[in-house]
Amino acid sequence: MSKNKLQCYVPDLGRLLDQLPKNWGRWGEEDEVGSLNFLTAEEVLRGVASVRQGRPFTLGVRIAAPEGDPIWPGRATAQRVNVMDRAHFMCGKAEPLSGGGEWADDMVVMYLQGSSQYDALGHVWYDDRLYNGYPATTTVGAMTKASVLPIAERGVVGRGVLIDMARFRGKECLDRGETFTHEDLEAAARHQGVSIAKHDILLVRTGWIGKFYCTPKEEFYKDFLEPGLTYSPDLVRWFHEREIPNLVTDTIANEVTVDPETGVTLPLHCALMRNLGVTFTEIIALDALAEDCAADGQWTFLYVAAPLKVVGGSGAPVNPVVIK
Amino acid sequence: MSKNKLQCYVPDLGRLLDQLPKNWGRWGEEDEVGSLNFLTAEEVLRGVASVRQGRPFTLGVRIAAPEGDPIWPGRATAQRVNVMDRAHFMCGKAEPLSGGGEWADDMVVMYLQGSSQYDALGHVWYDDRLYNGYPATTTVGAMTKASVLPIAERGVVGRGVLIDMARFRGKECLDRGETFTHEDLEAAARHQGVSIAKHDILLVRTGWIGKFYCTPKEEFYKDFLEPGLTYSPDLVRWFHEREIPNLVTDTIANEVTVDPETGVTLPLHCALMRNLGVTFTEIIALDALAEDCAADGQWTFLYVAAPLKVVGGSGAPVNPVVIK
Amino acid sequence: MSKNKLQCYVPDLGRLLDQLPKNWGRWGEEDEVGSLNFLTAEEVLRGVASVRQGRPFTLGVRIAAPEGDPIWPGRATAQRVNVMDRAHFMCGKAEPLSGGGEWADDMVVMYLQGSSQYDALGHVWYDDRLYNGYPATTTVGAMTKASVLPIAERGVVGRGVLIDMARFRGKECLDRGETFTHEDLEAAARHQGVSIAKHDILLVRTGWIGKFYCTPKEEFYKDFLEPGLTYSPDLVRWFHEREIPNLVTDTIANEVTVDPETGVTLPLHCALMRNLGVTFTEIIALDALAEDCAADGQWTFLYVAAPLKVVGGSGAPVNPVVIK
Amino acid sequence: MSKNKLQCYVPDLGRLLDQLPKNWGRWGEEDEVGSLNFLTAEEVLRGVASVRQGRPFTLGVRIAAPEGDPIWPGRATAQRVNVMDRAHFMCGKAEPLSGGGEWADDMVVMYLQGSSQYDALGHVWYDDRLYNGYPATTTVGAMTKASVLPIAERGVVGRGVLIDMARFRGKECLDRGETFTHEDLEAAARHQGVSIAKHDILLVRTGWIGKFYCTPKEEFYKDFLEPGLTYSPDLVRWFHEREIPNLVTDTIANEVTVDPETGVTLPLHCALMRNLGVTFTEIIALDALAEDCAADGQWTFLYVAAPLKVVGGSGAPVNPVVIK
Repeated sequence: MSKNKLQCYVPDLGRLLDQLPKNWGRWGEEDEVGSLNFLTAEEVLRGVASVRQGRPFTLGVRIAAPEGDPIWPGRATAQRVNVMDRAHFMCGKAEPLSGGGEWADDMVVMYLQGSSQYDALGHVWYDDRLYNGYPATTTVGAMTKASVLPIAERGVVGRGVLIDMARFRGKECLDRGETFTHEDLEAAARHQGVSIAKHDILLVRTGWIGKFYCTPKEEFYKDFLEPGLTYSPDLVRWFHEREIPNLVTDTIANEVTVDPETGVTLPLHCALMRNLGVTFTEIIALDALAEDCAADGQWTFLYVAAPLKVVGGSGAPVNPVVIK
Repeated sequence: MSKNKLQCYVPDLGRLLDQLPKNWGRWGEEDEVGSLNFLTAEEVLRGVASVRQGRPFTLGVRIAAPEGDPIWPGRATAQRVNVMDRAHFMCGKAEPLSGGGEWADDMVVMYLQGSSQYDALGHVWYDDRLYNGYPATTTVGAMTKASVLPIAERGVVGRGVLIDMARFRGKECLDRGETFTHEDLEAAARHQGVSIAKHDILLVRTGWIGKFYCTPKEEFYKDFLEPGLTYSPDLVRWFHEREIPNLVTDTIANEVTVDPETGVTLPLHCALMRNLGVTFTEIIALDALAEDCAADGQWTFLYVAAPLKVVGGSGAPVNPVVIK
Repeated sequence: MSKNKLQCYVPDLGRLLDQLPKNWGRWGEEDEVGSLNFLTAEEVLRGVASVRQGRPFTLGVRIAAPEGDPIWPGRATAQRVNVMDRAHFMCGKAEPLSGGGEWADDMVVMYLQGSSQYDALGHVWYDDRLYNGYPATTTVGAMTKASVLPIAERGVVGRGVLIDMARFRGKECLDRGETFTHEDLEAAARHQGVSIAKHDILLVRTGWIGKFYCTPKEEFYKDFLEPGLTYSPDLVRWFHEREIPNLVTDTIANEVTVDPETGVTLPLHCALMRNLGVTFTEIIALDALAEDCAADGQWTFLYVAAPLKVVGGSGAPVNPVVIK
Repeated sequence: MSKNKLQCYVPDLGRLLDQLPKNWGRWGEEDEVGSLNFLTAEEVLRGVASVRQGRPFTLGVRIAAPEGDPIWPGRATAQRVNVMDRAHFMCGKAEPLSGGGEWADDMVVMYLQGSSQYDALGHVWYDDRLYNGYPATTTVGAMTKASVLPIAERGVVGRGVLIDMARFRGKECLDRGETFTHEDLEAAARHQGVSIAKHDILLVRTGWIGKFYCTPKEEFYKDFLEPGLTYSPDLVRWFHEREIPNLVTDTIANEVTVDPETGVTLPLHCALMRNLGVTFTEIIALDALAEDCAADGQWTFLYVAAPLKVVGGSGAPVNPVVIK
């Protein structure tokens, strides 16, 4: 970061990404799901073929947990509240149903991106254009273009591959602001004895979300700077050529918070999500899955996820399932 | 209903269900997922083996839709609200990120059972005991036993079979309060050329949720009475013997609202969910799937669902995926 | 309304109100409380002097009432939910404080204009300008000009006078869409033996909010059309000359919903609030006060109100107090 | 606190307060407003008579302020969100009303005791009984006895007197855990040249809420311990004899967080509120008023407050007005 702090000039994303590939129009002017279009029936069947043991894992984090939820600074933690439970019947505040049935009921107030979640392709943008060229004004009030809804309607099914960067680097968790590149991903994959194939759903473990649960909150959020993938033109081209439909990580924003080279904040949201239409899945629990994969050496699996169908949502919560 | 209104005596659930089977203790004193235990690795692989075409369908309903959401009377409709969008940047209310990135962000207030959802096994009870014998007082404030969390942690993966009762009866949608039994399910299955196998995840279409979207709300909710499965001792034994892990329907409560024979409200929540540990999945969109199954004759598929991991929840939203 | 339906042309507010008075700039470029500036210390003392009996009345409506709350169509009803109560202690979900104290705690989700409330002066506008000429873009995300906050910081204290239009017309409640003018107000005042003095806080009873509580909701909201004051140039001039600081009524919007002459919706929000800076107080319970005033003939009193200091609010709830 | 930490024994409130006065039944078995009954018409007129200058002050704190809101640890900060504003019209997401009117609208999610607020008399209790002997089970789900509603229906009007303890002790703000007694209040009153008369509404300034706004949040909440009044039998008798209807302070809980003598948490909530029916008004902004009173020497005034009429509320927000 010292380099960053000294910088006088942070380039505009428009200029930075000018010569890099875009998938706008590739799937029609009305497309809102981007690289998920790569997940054809063949790719679904390839994912299904990767199931060997019949063992599912769920990858969502807990919501409204007493220990707190990992959220981006400035968002508020989910609040779940009972509106009906046994006490209402005990104290005469509610009548049982005919026959004697009683019930519990509850509400939640939460940020749509306040837990494990898919970003809408239009969630982040620059130069007044969202993915596929939709005007940024379509985000006002509710997203009417490239919202999370079309992703939720379609669902995400394919072969997933897990790359454990923390394990590759011999750490429980990557450091604050620690970066890695597509070449590091390839090296880690080789080390794991697996390859990142074209159209694979790419899951990357940093250990960061696991760290949240065993670190004092003040420490976790102090000078907030996540580890993650870092921008380079070659990395963007790698995602483009590899036709990655979905990037899934155990960090809150799927990339290093501020690119240390350019000082740009969250450039991959723009280079990959806005321009290539790569869907982003964030705040995902990967520790148990990684432990299991390391034990049996099977790092690929069927990945099935569908966020909630929230109309107009900039994102929506999800609990992805992988089946080994 | 006239019969019901004339009744002087509605039996207690305790007496009504006294001689019928329970699965309490079958999977240990600490079990909280009930009949999902039937979904072993073998069953997962059986589900995977039912995939033929590589075509996914998502079964969640829309949330916070402008046309309204189908909810149980008394619950409130989900409200989604933007907290950040392009307008904030246009009007100088927010600053872009370094490099020029902008973003949208939003919140939701919703009932946890206010859209497509899994019930916690402890969601409904009688005689002060939840599924597996947990005291009903554990529901107070937040469910600490048999909440939706263990279901969400485990996920639900297996072979699903869709029975289209509306189509079987030659209707767009079953009538208000129209009932059917396990024998009707078997008859419809035969008619479809499919069988409901042991451990199948059972999806039943009535057309009711589809009707919500094309009916004035006053009419839909007037003297609210859903169609659905209706209680009989034989039906309970059928679910027990067939070891159905999960009942999934396109109604708000998975069964006829009031049993016309006994006048008991929602007896199957007690007989199947509380006593047998059958998980209930409600408010599910089945019309498009049913149309597709009728067209190609494939009524079985891989079913994959995992509700949100809401700590203490009496239920949690879900967007199930089936893969044909 | 038939007249309105036949109309081909609804005039723009800009044209309609072009020749009518505005108070923009009258209290400086930074003013955000408008006609409340008329409530000088002298006016406060005049209000205080109107107290004769030492009897207070509160004018707020109930919030989150089991019988429902009167809200503008499209807004959602307030939801209040316990997060802590005796049951948590009974069932071991919470520990008493040292010494044995226990407590109850609760949350609310509500529209800021979903109960008795002050409108911000910037709540309604036309031609891209709010009260005092502030750009309408200052409303984006949160009101940064002419929000309810300055009204809440200042408070509203003065002499109030109640005009009971329903009683004057010999009705329990005015009819749907029934209108009245400043001349009707004067006539009713004379009938009551009182005068509407310069700088009086003007309370007008129609009976409409009282009707809400004894009418089926479907009927109350069907073809929603409130009774109320109706626009005319003379009425605007009357408010201007009388220097009315605050209009307080027992309707949801303080004026007839649609002006039957012009077809314009809520013109007085623009002519009085936006242009003259008259503060609007809506959804106020006036029945008990009116009954009392009719009984003792004292229609004037000290009026004291201060909405909640919600930062950026387009309005804020209030429970006004009058003291006779 | 060191003393407290060494204590082996914290007495039960039941034993501690056993010999002290209670006002249960004094105003009938159905009473829910307690010592507010002292505020008769005579007292209202005495309050009105204390107005000299015609200058109002509002005492609520800001809600949903960008700098944060002072709340009890564990509660969540109020969140206010726009649902409609100019941007919706600019971007074609909403249509103007006929005639061209546009509007802003917003929602809030907040704890009912998360800002300036009146406690319900039943908000805190011990030995399973609320104020006036109501069973504590009446708090379950919603308060059906001694909720904030009757206080809100009645309103609070009388003579207020401000005691500035911080000024009396020559400090900007009392220290963490700093205590004072009724004798200190009397001494400060004498120093101010004012007396605390029978039935006076008692406002006490510590400087604590003012400190919130100029202190880093981590520091403000670290080992949270407010300054305030401290329990003694004599203090309880003083409130009883002086027949104080309402205690209003600029702290979050109106008393020292933990009584340093006994180790009991919030004993005055029990001794004064539960037993005597003294209403508590908390998180009140007194700095500006105190400054003004110090300048002109007028420490008494008309006090007018009415919290929102939240049905079943354990408390409700308020913006009190005082008129000098």
